[in-house]
Amino acid sequence: MPAYDKKSLLEIGEKNERAELDCLRKFIRIPTCYYKKHDLKPIITQMSKEFETRGYKVQTFSTGGAPVVVADLDRGMNKTLLFYNHYDVQPEEPLDAWESPPYELSMRDERLYGRGVLDNKGPLVANLFGIQNAFEAGYEPKCNIRFVVEGEEEAGSIHLEEFCRAHPNLLESDGCVWEWANAVPNQRSKVYAGVKGDAYFELDTKGFCKDAHSGDAPIVVNPAWRLVWALSTLKNEKEEILIDGFYDDVVPPKKEELELLANYPQEQIEQYRELYKTEKFLLGREGVEFWKELVFSPTCSICGLSAGWEGPGSKTVIGKEAMAKVDFRLVPNQRAEKILQLLRRHLDKHGYSDVELKLFEGYEPSRTAIDHPFIQLLANVAKDFSGQEPILIPSHQGSGPAYLFGPHTPWAMCDIFDPETNLHAPNESMRLLDFRHMTAFIAAIAVQLGRT
Amino acid sequence: MPAYDKKSLLEIGEKNERAELDCLRKFIRIPTCYYKKHDLKPIITQMSKEFETRGYKVQTFSTGGAPVVVADLDRGMNKTLLFYNHYDVQPEEPLDAWESPPYELSMRDERLYGRGVLDNKGPLVANLFGIQNAFEAGYEPKCNIRFVVEGEEEAGSIHLEEFCRAHPNLLESDGCVWEWANAVPNQRSKVYAGVKGDAYFELDTKGFCKDAHSGDAPIVVNPAWRLVWALSTLKNEKEEILIDGFYDDVVPPKKEELELLANYPQEQIEQYRELYKTEKFLLGREGVEFWKELVFSPTCSICGLSAGWEGPGSKTVIGKEAMAKVDFRLVPNQRAEKILQLLRRHLDKHGYSDVELKLFEGYEPSRTAIDHPFIQLLANVAKDFSGQEPILIPSHQGSGPAYLFGPHTPWAMCDIFDPETNLHAPNESMRLLDFRHMTAFIAAIAVQLGRT
Repeated sequence: MPAYDKKSLLEIGEKNERAELDCLRKFIRIPTCYYKKHDLKPIITQMSKEFETRGYKVQTFSTGGAPVVVADLDRGMNKTLLFYNHYDVQPEEPLDAWESPPYELSMRDERLYGRGVLDNKGPLVANLFGIQNAFEAGYEPKCNIRFVVEGEEEAGSIHLEEFCRAHPNLLESDGCVWEWANAVPNQRSKVYAGVKGDAYFELDTKGFCKDAHSGDAPIVVNPAWRLVWALSTLKNEKEEILIDGFYDDVVPPKKEELELLANYPQEQIEQYRELYKTEKFLLGREGVEFWKELVFSPTCSICGLSAGWEGPGSKTVIGKEAMAKVDFRLVPNQRAEKILQLLRRHLDKHGYSDVELKLFEGYEPSRTAIDHPFIQLLANVAKDFSGQEPILIPSHQGSGPAYLFGPHTPWAMCDIFDPETNLHAPNESMRLLDFRHMTAFIAAIAVQLGRT
Repeated sequence: MPAYDKKSLLEIGEKNERAELDCLRKFIRIPTCYYKKHDLKPIITQMSKEFETRGYKVQTFSTGGAPVVVADLDRGMNKTLLFYNHYDVQPEEPLDAWESPPYELSMRDERLYGRGVLDNKGPLVANLFGIQNAFEAGYEPKCNIRFVVEGEEEAGSIHLEEFCRAHPNLLESDGCVWEWANAVPNQRSKVYAGVKGDAYFELDTKGFCKDAHSGDAPIVVNPAWRLVWALSTLKNEKEEILIDGFYDDVVPPKKEELELLANYPQEQIEQYRELYKTEKFLLGREGVEFWKELVFSPTCSICGLSAGWEGPGSKTVIGKEAMAKVDFRLVPNQRAEKILQLLRRHLDKHGYSDVELKLFEGYEPSRTAIDHPFIQLLANVAKDFSGQEPILIPSHQGSGPAYLFGPHTPWAMCDIFDPETNLHAPNESMRLLDFRHMTAFIAAIAVQLGRT
């Protein structure tokens, strides 16, 4: 039996909707792309105002980059609900692809549009009002509320680690909602209890001091060949990664995790098929194998290649350098720094000491146990809101800085399928329906967490 | 004993130098980049005028592209000296890198500057005046003179084949000077008696309909991997090309050709070392091995690579397509069309039927026998002009449409080393000294050919 009344939470949300959208409008109006060096003071001032009005105590932590804002509603309870959000956004370009100005909240056909409307200002506002509405609906959630809001998520959360290492106590909670959580009627929610890690490399090879005429091929070192040969040793066509020791630290999935996969609805795979308009996935993967690879396997992807002449037609040139971007998704207990060592050793062993390696990103994998009470709580509330059994996924195939929180707090992300969000693209959007339910869903989680 | 007096030929050249440079100035002033669709009528009118003034009969042959101009000084002799030149030039960009306007002939520090000054309007003028000066110096060369001047050399001589197939009789001669020939005091000339062929391919791989997030790597076909794996099967690190049948048609060098290589001066290798500022050439090649590979070996080069994210930093993307440019230099009797078949078969056999192949260029290899009288004649005159033994090279490492003439006529190119020509680049130039000697050298060849 839920400790909340879904209907009353939705009704309060409806009553406060103008205020909710006004708050979101103010957040969206402030450009906050970290890469573009937007002035971040206005968003921090605006957020602090919204928090303080609602009785939160706000602390702003300077870092080497964007400040981290921590807002506490300390109610002297034993339990704490934590929200991880970010106030920075992706760049708005290409500007002329937007149908309404990116930094104005717009509504068309029951959808909200604007940069950050989903990623991640909309959910931040939904969290803020979710808690407020829970109180207004007459519930007094029996937990403390804390927000940790960073400003570099879209830039790799470069300085978040610095903050997390310095303030582990601020990350302790009984459950952290990571970026967003939502459930709507008649649609199955996906509850993600983890993310993969990521080690993103650039591989560079150099030839002679200048581009050469390809007639000189018999005497000139061709860095494109060096790179292709080196890359071809990393993985075979069965998708087996051939780096010695690469799989050593991989923790195999537990029996109960594997059992989950068998029950994932075919419809979920069809959504991917629709997305990529393909008959056949890589190596014909379907069913349990599809999920097993997506959820539990580390990967090695060439994300970029560049060398020599890339324009139309023919240019008989041997470029003086070549470059590849290679991305490894990692699973527990793999670590980016170790992958760097193994990759370096692999290249050296195979005669590619000339290949220069740069590690750009190192996210660790992170998972909350699927039987953790917080995951179960999310799943139950999601089932209540949607009327559908949620899909419990031990790990998202993507990566993020959740590992910095993970050792201190169970966390999860709860997602619904919407092919039209345009995440990271022009005309970023969210259904108004989703915004409404997100707000109520958050309220329900707070109430429910306080009760258990 | 030469049939000419070098000194008198140089003196006549000096006397006519103002007219020679005026003629060159007029040619250079007319922009003739085929790619840039410059109006070609003015250059054809101007060339025709220069030829006709000197008693040549001019024919202009339309093709699907730039017209081919044939100018005949038919003196009723048994022998014919043929000149292959081209009136088109490389694009002038980047414009701001030029120290004087590209379409103005300029002189600085005893060098001529301007687009086409070496490639190939300067040599065309040197040929024209070389013949004129031979007459003015009192020699009546006992040979007919013919010029074949095309207008698409810098664009791959696309329509030259059409002309050559239609008019094989116009290509018959006792010797063809290919683009240029020169010899100057105290510098060893290189006499090239051949060129390699070329088969230039684009290889394309496709993945799904759109770029994918690299988290989806377990289910998404990555065209960059497909391409890297396919490429890695083409050649190994010992530079052995692994395509079945690739070497089948290769005619091994003759004993006398190999013997030549042993006498090539070390200084020639040092020029390459200087050019590329390298201690060590590919696979440590030096001496006879260096030359054997450069002159006689077919090659397989990656000339370009492109896929996914090529900018700075990290973008976790699996691009929807990948591309490579691959260039094969061919030796007698390899043929581009056959390489296309072999490469297709190779890719299919290795499981890469998904790799799309486009053949952009197909030049056949072409060689004149090094003991051919015309090669010997060039070598003797070069020795006379330079006071140094010329270096006889059976094949240049580059390629060109010489094979279209080769079956009908012995041909050669005679080159000197000048690191400052800026061929195909801004500030294209030629030493005034070279222009003077080139003119006299051509006169000497005509006189000598008529006598033998």
